[in-house]
Amino acid sequence: MRPSGRTPEQPREIRLTRKYTRHAEGSVLVEFGDTKVICTASVENKVPPFLRGEGKGWITAEYGMLPRSTGSRMGREAARGKQGGRTVEIQRLIGRSLRAAVDMKALGEHTITIDCDVIQADGGTRTAAITGGCVALVDALNHLVETKRLKKSPLKQMIAAVSVGIYKGEPVVDLDYPEDSEADTDLNVIMTDQGGFIEIQGTAEAAPFVQEELNSMLALAKQGIDKLFVLQKEALEG
Amino acid sequence: MRPSGRTPEQPREIRLTRKYTRHAEGSVLVEFGDTKVICTASVENKVPPFLRGEGKGWITAEYGMLPRSTGSRMGREAARGKQGGRTVEIQRLIGRSLRAAVDMKALGEHTITIDCDVIQADGGTRTAAITGGCVALVDALNHLVETKRLKKSPLKQMIAAVSVGIYKGEPVVDLDYPEDSEADTDLNVIMTDQGGFIEIQGTAEAAPFVQEELNSMLALAKQGIDKLFVLQKEALEG
Amino acid sequence: MRPSGRTPEQPREIRLTRKYTRHAEGSVLVEFGDTKVICTASVENKVPPFLRGEGKGWITAEYGMLPRSTGSRMGREAARGKQGGRTVEIQRLIGRSLRAAVDMKALGEHTITIDCDVIQADGGTRTAAITGGCVALVDALNHLVETKRLKKSPLKQMIAAVSVGIYKGEPVVDLDYPEDSEADTDLNVIMTDQGGFIEIQGTAEAAPFVQEELNSMLALAKQGIDKLFVLQKEALEG
Amino acid sequence: MRPSGRTPEQPREIRLTRKYTRHAEGSVLVEFGDTKVICTASVENKVPPFLRGEGKGWITAEYGMLPRSTGSRMGREAARGKQGGRTVEIQRLIGRSLRAAVDMKALGEHTITIDCDVIQADGGTRTAAITGGCVALVDALNHLVETKRLKKSPLKQMIAAVSVGIYKGEPVVDLDYPEDSEADTDLNVIMTDQGGFIEIQGTAEAAPFVQEELNSMLALAKQGIDKLFVLQKEALEG
Amino acid sequence: MRPSGRTPEQPREIRLTRKYTRHAEGSVLVEFGDTKVICTASVENKVPPFLRGEGKGWITAEYGMLPRSTGSRMGREAARGKQGGRTVEIQRLIGRSLRAAVDMKALGEHTITIDCDVIQADGGTRTAAITGGCVALVDALNHLVETKRLKKSPLKQMIAAVSVGIYKGEPVVDLDYPEDSEADTDLNVIMTDQGGFIEIQGTAEAAPFVQEELNSMLALAKQGIDKLFVLQKEALEG
Amino acid sequence: MRPSGRTPEQPREIRLTRKYTRHAEGSVLVEFGDTKVICTASVENKVPPFLRGEGKGWITAEYGMLPRSTGSRMGREAARGKQGGRTVEIQRLIGRSLRAAVDMKALGEHTITIDCDVIQADGGTRTAAITGGCVALVDALNHLVETKRLKKSPLKQMIAAVSVGIYKGEPVVDLDYPEDSEADTDLNVIMTDQGGFIEIQGTAEAAPFVQEELNSMLALAKQGIDKLFVLQKEALEG
Repeated sequence: MRPSGRTPEQPREIRLTRKYTRHAEGSVLVEFGDTKVICTASVENKVPPFLRGEGKGWITAEYGMLPRSTGSRMGREAARGKQGGRTVEIQRLIGRSLRAAVDMKALGEHTITIDCDVIQADGGTRTAAITGGCVALVDALNHLVETKRLKKSPLKQMIAAVSVGIYKGEPVVDLDYPEDSEADTDLNVIMTDQGGFIEIQGTAEAAPFVQEELNSMLALAKQGIDKLFVLQKEALEG
Repeated sequence: MRPSGRTPEQPREIRLTRKYTRHAEGSVLVEFGDTKVICTASVENKVPPFLRGEGKGWITAEYGMLPRSTGSRMGREAARGKQGGRTVEIQRLIGRSLRAAVDMKALGEHTITIDCDVIQADGGTRTAAITGGCVALVDALNHLVETKRLKKSPLKQMIAAVSVGIYKGEPVVDLDYPEDSEADTDLNVIMTDQGGFIEIQGTAEAAPFVQEELNSMLALAKQGIDKLFVLQKEALEG
Repeated sequence: MRPSGRTPEQPREIRLTRKYTRHAEGSVLVEFGDTKVICTASVENKVPPFLRGEGKGWITAEYGMLPRSTGSRMGREAARGKQGGRTVEIQRLIGRSLRAAVDMKALGEHTITIDCDVIQADGGTRTAAITGGCVALVDALNHLVETKRLKKSPLKQMIAAVSVGIYKGEPVVDLDYPEDSEADTDLNVIMTDQGGFIEIQGTAEAAPFVQEELNSMLALAKQGIDKLFVLQKEALEG
Repeated sequence: MRPSGRTPEQPREIRLTRKYTRHAEGSVLVEFGDTKVICTASVENKVPPFLRGEGKGWITAEYGMLPRSTGSRMGREAARGKQGGRTVEIQRLIGRSLRAAVDMKALGEHTITIDCDVIQADGGTRTAAITGGCVALVDALNHLVETKRLKKSPLKQMIAAVSVGIYKGEPVVDLDYPEDSEADTDLNVIMTDQGGFIEIQGTAEAAPFVQEELNSMLALAKQGIDKLFVLQKEALEG
Repeated sequence: MRPSGRTPEQPREIRLTRKYTRHAEGSVLVEFGDTKVICTASVENKVPPFLRGEGKGWITAEYGMLPRSTGSRMGREAARGKQGGRTVEIQRLIGRSLRAAVDMKALGEHTITIDCDVIQADGGTRTAAITGGCVALVDALNHLVETKRLKKSPLKQMIAAVSVGIYKGEPVVDLDYPEDSEADTDLNVIMTDQGGFIEIQGTAEAAPFVQEELNSMLALAKQGIDKLFVLQKEALEG
Repeated sequence: MRPSGRTPEQPREIRLTRKYTRHAEGSVLVEFGDTKVICTASVENKVPPFLRGEGKGWITAEYGMLPRSTGSRMGREAARGKQGGRTVEIQRLIGRSLRAAVDMKALGEHTITIDCDVIQADGGTRTAAITGGCVALVDALNHLVETKRLKKSPLKQMIAAVSVGIYKGEPVVDLDYPEDSEADTDLNVIMTDQGGFIEIQGTAEAAPFVQEELNSMLALAKQGIDKLFVLQKEALEG
């Protein structure tokens, strides 16, 4: 039994609130149960140095946690003077994942930065950030069309993510913190709405996992992500 | 006329939402109109090195803005590797102000850190942070009583803050961003609910101000802050 | 009675020594009693990025203390790799205050940096720095005229600063360190030689202050600053 | 056809040279073709703060590239003052992977740091580092036994790693740089010598991959890793 | 001919002013002509970690230049967040040199930090700093005796330093900035008052120097340093 | 007797292996006995800001030690976020020394960076780095000729370096770590193959040295360096 009473294939209650703050071109509050992340997408009319003059755009992501988004207060990264290793790892994952959503040629020389700031953490912040960040990204791309900077949205496909893991010997989807901290294996799966994998990242510090377990986890993940695509679509149409 | 249509002595709509996030001992969303700040109060059972063995507690504050809380995206301080001068100045002000609320001897060897993170900015973030931070602080002090770490709350007095300024020649209270960016003088006033000043900080980069203007601004500030004390009280009783 | 034997309205002996070092366009040793600060003004023929192409100049300030300017040695900020919060707060105050002295349009695309380095500290370093820094600034502006880069000095008004406080229940001017470390309230007042306030910054961590106390402190400050304007004028004519 | 003329299931020539430098408790030069990494394992008789008093050991890893290990010179991270995101991501992966090799209780309060320094890069530096780092780790564990600090080696299992990818539409093992920079998908697989997965990390920035492709890649990876376990064994017996 | 009109073996006018600032245990303004350095010696009753429990003391030095001590303003190291390479090199030299003056066993578990801050630079700041720093150090050692922390001063010998160089083909002593910036060779010589060398550091980026030139420079240096020992003695007796 | 059994004038076995890694324009493994340093020379078609438009080139050096190149592990400088003082001092010495080898006008607007990374340390890393770095530099200069970016090599002279010291009262050449850590005096001598000194740097923290000792050390150094020039020549012709 899962601590939350959920069935193995049951994700938490998921909510996507668009236009959550007013300044950003895209701004979404994403909630995976008690995990709450503000995702904003900011457009700039320039690209980083390594892309200058190539006629292509760029999408990048930054991730942060409010110091008291967690059970005990974490030191503020800005005060300590550097981002921790986990932060760096997560923001690189979000950036890579969301770049797969967009045709960079069609985006032209614009940079879109996805900021994902966790205001309350209960496991799965990176998958929530990717899922919510993609909605904010779509809003920002549409903003480029509305403001006549692009003729049509360069969106290629939607991206969403969910975690799966082996908890007490059984594969489960969308682990919350109590599950996550005890799971043998933790696998983050990022997919396109056309059924392909963009990234899979599985870790088994405690007990190694085998091919069959991987297969069950991936099957659960696909099911879970399909629900996310429905919710993303509803949010964008809402 | 003020851009928002408010009268000179009319603050914006102000809301204090307690228990906004679930992990912190005190957690308040404070809204001064479109300015929205999450204030959390975190308790630790230790004090900084300079106070060790003195039998006294400590209250400190940290301030941050989400990168896209503003009209154009600001670089993330954690990524740049240091807090900006404005950030440092503001968090020191918040810390000094809120220390005045508490009897440090009675607090004993505990540190309370007030984190103020701006999720949407429209002027007056520091005064909102102090006003909301004081409510989060009260909740954290009460938590120390509830968890039997203190016999009674070491709260001495409530603290609230508001900005006043000279906008188009006239003193106004609680400036929003369009006013703030054009005001001749900007004065932040922090008071106790017993009518004393804790801090006043007035700046006139454009045109110097004179004693009468100062007096009118302080009168407006007192009026405005009195409303804040009512709202703090309602929130804490609610 | 004040520890120094001064009357409440009596500032310390104040000295302004121009051309203290030989390289800077303006270089002043300012002494407020035992507080000694070297203020230099350095001219550059360019402006910071945010002002480029605006046809306006900029004035900024940096502040530092020699490690053993104080009773016990402070760690060197350059060695620790960052400026402390107090340093940042003070240098921002000096910069804001001195910008009020100059017509930025008339200054044209020049930047003047005021470096204030405390070689001996005994309270009031920031007010000494502003008062001495203004004299160094005037010298630098005159240097721009002498070297034909400007037709006339863009100086609008002189700026000076003094601290006032409530020491043992009584308002006193120009607090030295023994007073400062025990005062209930500490107020820094920055004024123009035309009688306007540029900045007032009052802090009462210990006991809040009331309007009448504020009024007495401001009256004392005005008196004290008037003496400073006389001394600045003498120095510049000397 | 692969640029190197290798068949899809053929790894590069792999060499593990033990005792490569003389100071470290374990020191291995690992070569995956032209990729050359020095892996040292250093033992300390203490653990990081978060483990103190738990009676358990710790294994951590650091990764670096010599500035000119690559085709064009990269800035030295020590000179720039921070480790880049890729470095942080890789060293966390190496640390997590190698922790799976050891029984931390049996290790007792020792920390072993695996330093992986790339002296020449041609793709696959992280998989080479894990494979070579595990051999250095075994030597360091044996050193603890030889020096009577442990009764028997706390090694649980060997760990090795290889990359697989989809290159020109076909799955291939152990990608070199020319393949890596053009591959559609890049999957790093870390396994135990008992056939379990420790970590899989697959990225498809260009074209998403599907389950069948994942299965073929994992099959190739298993084959390749089996060869690595043979080479590790030979090296340790040699 | 030297730009200053000095003869080759003539140092600049040298002044050592003790008790220059009032807080430090030793405080000396040293002037080598227009080069002016404040040297303070600060005593702490502890030693750095690597010496704890060894019953020995430590002497270390830090060096800095005020931003406008030079012809054009240098960025403030505290603001840039790190000390430059030249600074680091110089402060290590000063520390090494002054450690030779003291019997570390006899010093006991005290650390003396020599801060050398250049307020005006005209060549030879490091030799001035060593020469003045040694006087400040003697005062600090005597302070330890006066305050009964040591029975007698652990001073072994005086240390002084001077630069010599090949300027326009001729060896000269105590180069000022115009000479220094054109000299072929620049040699800093640090000696004890008993005639031994503590450090010699000669650089010839432009034209290499030969043994005879080295010999002439060392002879000049000895002569010059002998004068410094006289001046140090006079200052300490004055 | 020396711990290694060498005679006083006998350097360690010295090896220079060119083309040690494949990417750099020059790449040399230099071994002075057990001291092993990888020296690479990297060419860039640009110069640092202070030389732009001057038509001259630049040569600079960076130095690092692998964390476990030494007897006990040193913290990684990239992880600590700054280069230590010793590192900075050494890399400045290497850069200054190697600049003397090249005619900067003839080099034109190219920068050559010499990276010296110690993979195993046993004393004398800086002299090994200079000696090996000069060979890597020659290869890089020749590469500029081979790739038609220069008509002829701008090499003026070869540079090599060796340490000498007073060990147990006797001058010895090329100190290894056991000697270095006990020597009274340590002198690094950098010379040209035409017999001139480029830099001499002698330190005597323990016992001062006198002119005769200096002379004997310099004589030993010259002998030792002559052998190095032969080895450099053989390596470059090999």
